[in-house]
Amino acid sequence: MAEKMVVTPWEVSGKIDYDQLIKGFGMKPFARFAKILPDNVLFRRGIVYGHRDFERIADAIKKKKEFVMMTGLMPTGKFHLGHKILADQIIYYQSHGAKVYVAVADIEAYNTRLGSMKELKKTAIEEYLLNYIALGLKPKNCDFYFQSNRSSNAKKANAYYKLAGMAARHITFNEMKAIYGAINPGRITSALFQASDMFHPELPEFGGPKPVVVPVGFDQDPHLRLARDIGNRIKEFKFIQLSSTYHKFVVGLKGGKMSSSDPTSFIALTDSPEEAAKKIRKHAFSGGQETVEMHRKKGGNPDIDVSYQWLYAFFEPNDKKIKNIHDDYKSGALLTGELKEYLIKKVTAFLKEHQKKREKARNMVDKFLVKD
Amino acid sequence: MAEKMVVTPWEVSGKIDYDQLIKGFGMKPFARFAKILPDNVLFRRGIVYGHRDFERIADAIKKKKEFVMMTGLMPTGKFHLGHKILADQIIYYQSHGAKVYVAVADIEAYNTRLGSMKELKKTAIEEYLLNYIALGLKPKNCDFYFQSNRSSNAKKANAYYKLAGMAARHITFNEMKAIYGAINPGRITSALFQASDMFHPELPEFGGPKPVVVPVGFDQDPHLRLARDIGNRIKEFKFIQLSSTYHKFVVGLKGGKMSSSDPTSFIALTDSPEEAAKKIRKHAFSGGQETVEMHRKKGGNPDIDVSYQWLYAFFEPNDKKIKNIHDDYKSGALLTGELKEYLIKKVTAFLKEHQKKREKARNMVDKFLVKD
Repeated sequence: MAEKMVVTPWEVSGKIDYDQLIKGFGMKPFARFAKILPDNVLFRRGIVYGHRDFERIADAIKKKKEFVMMTGLMPTGKFHLGHKILADQIIYYQSHGAKVYVAVADIEAYNTRLGSMKELKKTAIEEYLLNYIALGLKPKNCDFYFQSNRSSNAKKANAYYKLAGMAARHITFNEMKAIYGAINPGRITSALFQASDMFHPELPEFGGPKPVVVPVGFDQDPHLRLARDIGNRIKEFKFIQLSSTYHKFVVGLKGGKMSSSDPTSFIALTDSPEEAAKKIRKHAFSGGQETVEMHRKKGGNPDIDVSYQWLYAFFEPNDKKIKNIHDDYKSGALLTGELKEYLIKKVTAFLKEHQKKREKARNMVDKFLVKD
Repeated sequence: MAEKMVVTPWEVSGKIDYDQLIKGFGMKPFARFAKILPDNVLFRRGIVYGHRDFERIADAIKKKKEFVMMTGLMPTGKFHLGHKILADQIIYYQSHGAKVYVAVADIEAYNTRLGSMKELKKTAIEEYLLNYIALGLKPKNCDFYFQSNRSSNAKKANAYYKLAGMAARHITFNEMKAIYGAINPGRITSALFQASDMFHPELPEFGGPKPVVVPVGFDQDPHLRLARDIGNRIKEFKFIQLSSTYHKFVVGLKGGKMSSSDPTSFIALTDSPEEAAKKIRKHAFSGGQETVEMHRKKGGNPDIDVSYQWLYAFFEPNDKKIKNIHDDYKSGALLTGELKEYLIKKVTAFLKEHQKKREKARNMVDKFLVKD
């Protein structure tokens, strides 16, 4: 069943062929960096699979030179496993020398009618910041900011917004339309703020030109290409072109897309372990056979089994163990129920520990919100 | 010769019927305020002819309550008589209790490809600020700022740009298109910055809600109506709706439009008196007859005579004298050449005095640029 692959910022569907994405959109395979960079399970297992201009980031990590890891977040919904894949990368780069910039896209969310500014701020802190901290984000070398309130330093604030305003000259209406399809003033504003989010770490007020890496899912690539075009065209500033990496989509619990509007498609990092176990037992899409007898005989398919995928991406970093699980499931030695219980054990341990850390993280919030 | 009247932000042509404008666009006549406000030649002579919601401004002036006079400038070209009509109003309101906000629309000008940010800044100071100061603008109760650099106070800066960003939610693409016709990201950005320019004096960071008057030519009314719509729709802030006044177009030297790209259509406030005299003698459109004999017999038409119009709007504030000039020109007692020389005498005296003041004004510039 080869569904047509559709990947845009507004839609992801069909079976995704990552090799085709790399070739079709002028990215390069990421694999070679996995071998030379400090170990990271997402790199090692090819979950981060593609990049643009990552060479200077690898170089900065190796030579301990200045670089920035930049990302944005839409402060809506629950923080779930689909968000963890990015959080893990943020923390990895921070621990290997990056200055981290996290933009809360509250202006974008407001213009997309996703909530009031007050609700958006609350969600940014409760769902995102607290979970980031619990996952290991440190206040040092971290600039966590809201698009609506860039900095308590006036020079920095003015410079950030000036760049967003000037960016409008360097992109045509038709280019925006080609990338986004339907267009409105809110979406145009969002694209301009995003361009400034990505490039402003290179402004003189923020220390001047430096390598900036933006890790994204491929659905976010149009934003990046738009920003890159602006960066090429704007002559008033000397920008080093953005670097980016591309990670695979995390499959939803039921096998389709992980969707914030469907709580049975994800496990939130604030779900209780009991809730999570229940969701996995009831909803996790299985690659197993219809009966135990058939499974023992024919074996299961780990490549489409969600429990296996989640263990692979998040919960079983031990390469030997994950290989055994893979092989045992494929041979039929490991049953779907057993695989699910293994995942549940791992998820339970993770959530218990994480939620303790998340409560402790409340004391740290102010260290991230007071800037400069 | 009744040309079709066309009035948009991008085009003004034909004979303008101000009564029709007032009725057709839901403005009200300004005349009654001329009688109750401190004297101003532009009010008294009906050059400011229409308004929206001006009642609260008149009230604030009379009762010495807080209010704001807000205006924007495009920092391009020479500062000429067409700009003086607005400058005179700025200074009038400041001297009668207004806090003055002047936005240098450098982001807008940049996005309209009118120059580099550096050139735009230079023009804003050399052509606009220096002339404003020479005409009487005081640093006290004046906030002269650049859209690219709103404030040296971070809270104020963030709040101003946040409002521009949030405004995008409250205006549709089709509304913008209906107002502006051709549209592009730069123009959309300009409209959003303008809305913030006009409303941000009412933000908590700028002292909260208060009456704000924006004096404009009618060609700028679409910007105002767009901003008013945004002000009505945005529920996050309590805004008192904008007030606005409308002044007549200043006729160009040759009788048509005063155009920055045609130096023979205007007198710049930096033109030497000799240059100005030459321009008036050579180019000033006359309402006189073809020969002296015919003029003596039939009389001239002051209503289409540029020299008379300029005396009326700028250079002869004495009502008795301007009436005599009007009547004498109409009767034929005053010849076109004599009328021109009278204007030249007045213009010469004005330019000499003004240009002295403008040089002195250089010492004052810093007082306007250092903010908060």
